[in-house]
Amino acid sequence: MSHPHPELGPPPELSDGALRIVALGGLGEIGRNMAVFEYEHRLLIVDCGVLFPEPDQPGVDLILPDFEYIRDRLDDIEAVVLTHAHEDHIGAVPYLLRERRDIPIVGSRLTLALIEAKLTEHRIQPVKVEVVEGERRRFGPFETEFLAVNHSIPDALAVAIRTPAGIVLHTGDFRMDQLPSDGRLTDLGGFARLGAEGVDLLMSDSTNAEVPGFVTSEREIAPVIDEVIRTAEKRVIVASFASHIHRVQQVIDSAEKHGRKVALVGRSMIRNMGVARDLGYLRVSPGVIVDSKEIEGWPAEDVVLICTGSQGEPMAALSRMANRDHPIRVAEGDTVLLASSLVPGNETAVNKVINGLSRWGARVVHKGNAKVHVSGHAAAGELLYVLNLTRPSNFMPVHGEWRHLRAHAKLAALTGVPDDHIVIAEDGVVVDLVDGRARIVGAVPAGYVYVDGTSVGDVTDFALKDRRILGDEGFISIVVVVDTGTGKLTAGPEIHARGSGIDPDRLVEVLPQIERALQEHAADGVVDIQQIRRVVRRTVGRWVSDTYRRRPMIIPVVIEV
Amino acid sequence: MSHPHPELGPPPELSDGALRIVALGGLGEIGRNMAVFEYEHRLLIVDCGVLFPEPDQPGVDLILPDFEYIRDRLDDIEAVVLTHAHEDHIGAVPYLLRERRDIPIVGSRLTLALIEAKLTEHRIQPVKVEVVEGERRRFGPFETEFLAVNHSIPDALAVAIRTPAGIVLHTGDFRMDQLPSDGRLTDLGGFARLGAEGVDLLMSDSTNAEVPGFVTSEREIAPVIDEVIRTAEKRVIVASFASHIHRVQQVIDSAEKHGRKVALVGRSMIRNMGVARDLGYLRVSPGVIVDSKEIEGWPAEDVVLICTGSQGEPMAALSRMANRDHPIRVAEGDTVLLASSLVPGNETAVNKVINGLSRWGARVVHKGNAKVHVSGHAAAGELLYVLNLTRPSNFMPVHGEWRHLRAHAKLAALTGVPDDHIVIAEDGVVVDLVDGRARIVGAVPAGYVYVDGTSVGDVTDFALKDRRILGDEGFISIVVVVDTGTGKLTAGPEIHARGSGIDPDRLVEVLPQIERALQEHAADGVVDIQQIRRVVRRTVGRWVSDTYRRRPMIIPVVIEV
Repeated sequence: MSHPHPELGPPPELSDGALRIVALGGLGEIGRNMAVFEYEHRLLIVDCGVLFPEPDQPGVDLILPDFEYIRDRLDDIEAVVLTHAHEDHIGAVPYLLRERRDIPIVGSRLTLALIEAKLTEHRIQPVKVEVVEGERRRFGPFETEFLAVNHSIPDALAVAIRTPAGIVLHTGDFRMDQLPSDGRLTDLGGFARLGAEGVDLLMSDSTNAEVPGFVTSEREIAPVIDEVIRTAEKRVIVASFASHIHRVQQVIDSAEKHGRKVALVGRSMIRNMGVARDLGYLRVSPGVIVDSKEIEGWPAEDVVLICTGSQGEPMAALSRMANRDHPIRVAEGDTVLLASSLVPGNETAVNKVINGLSRWGARVVHKGNAKVHVSGHAAAGELLYVLNLTRPSNFMPVHGEWRHLRAHAKLAALTGVPDDHIVIAEDGVVVDLVDGRARIVGAVPAGYVYVDGTSVGDVTDFALKDRRILGDEGFISIVVVVDTGTGKLTAGPEIHARGSGIDPDRLVEVLPQIERALQEHAADGVVDIQQIRRVVRRTVGRWVSDTYRRRPMIIPVVIEV
Repeated sequence: MSHPHPELGPPPELSDGALRIVALGGLGEIGRNMAVFEYEHRLLIVDCGVLFPEPDQPGVDLILPDFEYIRDRLDDIEAVVLTHAHEDHIGAVPYLLRERRDIPIVGSRLTLALIEAKLTEHRIQPVKVEVVEGERRRFGPFETEFLAVNHSIPDALAVAIRTPAGIVLHTGDFRMDQLPSDGRLTDLGGFARLGAEGVDLLMSDSTNAEVPGFVTSEREIAPVIDEVIRTAEKRVIVASFASHIHRVQQVIDSAEKHGRKVALVGRSMIRNMGVARDLGYLRVSPGVIVDSKEIEGWPAEDVVLICTGSQGEPMAALSRMANRDHPIRVAEGDTVLLASSLVPGNETAVNKVINGLSRWGARVVHKGNAKVHVSGHAAAGELLYVLNLTRPSNFMPVHGEWRHLRAHAKLAALTGVPDDHIVIAEDGVVVDLVDGRARIVGAVPAGYVYVDGTSVGDVTDFALKDRRILGDEGFISIVVVVDTGTGKLTAGPEIHARGSGIDPDRLVEVLPQIERALQEHAADGVVDIQQIRRVVRRTVGRWVSDTYRRRPMIIPVVIEV
């Protein structure tokens, strides 16, 4: 198996007849999935998603793939194929289309409808190419074929990409639910047919590669949800992802069965379910869904609310209910159902929400105490089926952190893929498929691009480092006004501190030390602003470190008059 | 069941013959356990621990109970009973003893040895009172009796407190391992005897009240650990808590069996295992443990390292190994064993460590993929035994977040404790046991006291709010120098920003706006520093919000010359 090579240089020129694959996201992380395929100077992109920030990326709203690798080659892009409409696969599309508006966007009917609703908010009208499972479609030198896969959102697709370099099968996200409520099975027959034809490279979803066995059918959740709603004494509040149409369908069906009305809460929930209803993916009897404003005054036992916020997002309705900062006042007898996964990184936030709701007396049902969620990703036992059916010459695990990629690579090895035909790549690593072999040939930049407020890319890793220091330690700023002529102190030093936790009365203790240090400096007779800054920073830094064992950011400001 | 009353006022004077119980920590949180018992103006304290900070408490090292409630009454304290030597039960003792050095510290032999080793680092020599299970001891009006309990550290105790107000049984932390390796069982016979005598109030460990069933015996882990060490190709690195003597014993036994030497890494690991070895709690054959420096050059297959860092602490050896920032260079074939729980809140940090180690090719064994940890706290099925054996007149769940306290209260109700005899209290809530009934009678302050560097309590919630803003958004500071006589700008405005992610070239765009705003202000002819600050803050704030939709902290500094 190939290993990470921090010393990888830029890749060589792409040779004739070779297919190049560069993931700009999704390898070594779960999120911002984006794979760029290149053949004879033409590009095909599969997925273009966002990554959600971790605590060490404070204040960041979203993280995008770095488009630098393709920025000079936007006109070479034949199309962007979207395997399904989850944010980690489509969220960065608006940002890519800002760079070139008319890139054709390829996807299933629901995927296109959901991306279009999203793009409308960005005031972009996309060029759409609707495809359906079983269909073949050529984009420049790329002959694509789409296959149905089952996932936690309807209408997901895998894509096979044929070029003279060989057949690449990219599974997208999938699971293997054998009794799906909409009848849409992952097309193992199609995978087998491709396997018989010869898959030169399999790129397969690694999310659950560490999880042994098989994922339970979505169908088995329905009776659990139904029982929760049937036995609920008062209000029922269900939190789920705004894209999980099947789960929402289950809740609505059960609510109707038990004579409760349903209100949808949250902008993305209302938008997506509207789209799903219009296209027939969500079926609701007339009068069952009512406006959430209307429902506030209703008897609690007649109501089911379906909202976002299952990941503990602080501004979402559910968090605000937990803090009693919402018109819906959760109380003893209410039931809250977290019908979703717990995305790694959100544990603390979700725990806070559960505790807040428990404090007010609500019963909280979650995947830790009831079977109210199944994963959307195939587990190890199922991944083996795909490996055995496709019998790939080369294997590249995708969609996973290192632990998942390694685990998936091990599964591939167990099914007989030779170790030296398994490529574990990180974001930016360049893989060439040539003469039937996939090999790492170099690397390109694939860093994080941060979205904060309205700006994209202005917040850098350098700014985040500053934020981490400021957030952990606060800052002390010292202003001195010096006379340019004499180098003497005209006013100040004035000292300000925020977030440092240092008593202002003690803070002034350092002022005489600064004055003394500046006098010693001025004795040289030379006025050197940089030097004054250094003297101030060193004096204050040493004092804080000696007195408090702390390292706040120290900002000397020198003003000349 | 009693519910949280945010409107609780100060408690009334304690009536004669009544026992008062105030938890200054541990209720509504897992950590900083501390219960203050009061009878006839005398105080007995059970445990005095720390809480570890969450991400929204940035830069904080530790959180202590607020001693304000007892600060004027330090001389009334008869003793501090420590149930066992975990940090969340003993960590705040050094800070309490700073306020009064000669408070008697009561505990088992191991507990006292470990707190003494800790206090030595704080240069405090405690007054120790060693007790053993089965022993009765009087402290002022409090007749205490100690009972053995089994936990994830040896020599843990429950304590029964007798006063004329009745019998209170405080379980401390416990589990019910029926085949413990050291033969120390939780004393259910003693619990039953107290139950027969009449337990007026049971205060019992709620940590695992949500977890159905029973905790596996520690004994069942040994073969799993042994198999990991037996089959390891190269180096074995085990991360565990520095207090988990039984787990470390298992690793050492297995290492010796397979001909490997063991090195201990990390200050607290070395200190605690030294104490445990001296007292006979850890048994090691001569020559098995070697110095960690010595082991660096050894053949990887002859080595087991036991280190701290199982919670992903960034400065611990394990995190540094994952980042290749440690002399031990983890490589393909190495095995890392996380033989510990995953403390809620640490998921992201631990995930990062697992990914880092996986990246370098190590096999990472953890509780997610092997049975290498069992909890130290009794699960719901076991808690029912304690409730049924003690048949308490009143019940107060302790040691838990709201979700755990609620779940434990529900178990108590199922065993027949009447709802109105179950008291769910938060930190600071005052509970009086009088005439056989426990009731909430008021509340006292029980906020967080933050330790940061060498300072205790200087970092306030206000400073933390500043840190959160600074950490999320950075700051912009604007310095203006004004002539006190004329109110005119003498120098500046100078603008500095850190962590804001705003391009410095664009930042200067706001300068003319500030000057214009100040000119308009100066037209009044009045120099009002506060007013100038307001004008500057408003001008810059509006510009940033309009241009970037951001809210960095804005710091106007006005200097008069």
